[in-house]
Amino acid sequence: MPPRGYRKHDFPVSQIRRFLEPGPVVLVSSAWKGETNIMTMGWHMVMEFTPSLVACVIAESNHSFALVRRSRECVINVPTVDLVDAVVGIGNCSGRDVDKFARFGLTAQPAAKVAAPLVAECYANLECRLHDASLIRRYNVFIWEVVKAHAPRTPKYPPTLHYRGHGVFMLSGRSVSFRRKFKRQNL
Amino acid sequence: MPPRGYRKHDFPVSQIRRFLEPGPVVLVSSAWKGETNIMTMGWHMVMEFTPSLVACVIAESNHSFALVRRSRECVINVPTVDLVDAVVGIGNCSGRDVDKFARFGLTAQPAAKVAAPLVAECYANLECRLHDASLIRRYNVFIWEVVKAHAPRTPKYPPTLHYRGHGVFMLSGRSVSFRRKFKRQNL
Repeated sequence: MPPRGYRKHDFPVSQIRRFLEPGPVVLVSSAWKGETNIMTMGWHMVMEFTPSLVACVIAESNHSFALVRRSRECVINVPTVDLVDAVVGIGNCSGRDVDKFARFGLTAQPAAKVAAPLVAECYANLECRLHDASLIRRYNVFIWEVVKAHAPRTPKYPPTLHYRGHGVFMLSGRSVSFRRKFKRQNL
Repeated sequence: MPPRGYRKHDFPVSQIRRFLEPGPVVLVSSAWKGETNIMTMGWHMVMEFTPSLVACVIAESNHSFALVRRSRECVINVPTVDLVDAVVGIGNCSGRDVDKFARFGLTAQPAAKVAAPLVAECYANLECRLHDASLIRRYNVFIWEVVKAHAPRTPKYPPTLHYRGHGVFMLSGRSVSFRRKFKRQNL
């Protein structure tokens, strides 16, 4: 699987809801002491525009848990539908046993502001620093600040995978504007 | 807009990820001292299967904020695509000025375990009690326990609306099983 041809640009961190709020499954990449890993993750939520905050659940049973907790960093990568085999495969093996970048033919690309690598093949890459660790122990919830975002200008909206459990994904459909029915201050 | 013909049944609260994890915009209904309200909400996240925990952001500027905080209850309703006019309309007016059930022709149906009403026309209704109030002040984040869920047996997967910001919704597409690629313990 060669790197996808996306030409990515800086994307405003205050607008990353465009990619996360519709609820796609994402790939979380991490690094700690020379080791890297990737996990598939579906439990996340936009929390604030500025600072750009995102919460997510990373269970302690995941190999990535220690990497993100110790490094206090990660990259949230938004994969598109064509990456479904990697998305499913990454969620069904452990970084304890496997170098997932190598196994799934993915490219670890250096990030700008964090040590965790970008997954180059993904549509968007959100570099994150830990903003609040207070919910990790009780709920495995990490509250991240997105400090840098990369996305292509086209397509404007990526075709994404949305997990329903039990091995079933919903595929994203078309995007429709209802802009004229919104009050200006809500746009 | 007459009530939809869904014949709803008890749905296991531990499996409500089926409806929320794909990331649909939802309607949050609430009640306090004889007043009811509905708001449109897109920032939510499944947190745990058992107890069935869901986090969401309800900004203090919403009229619903006081109702849910005081009553410590709400119903998370999952609307389908045909309700888009109500979803947009509800998000663009305030319960301070409008009875939203009346304005949008929606039916307030009694819930089983909470005082907040179900929105009958929605596909699924999740009755919630406040599980953890500790993040409300800092982040406007409510952590709910789903104590009762109602959903029809068919269709198995509802056609839903997923918000991207700026008045644009992504419509859910088809659901595809990759079950045979999953390890048993991950299903």
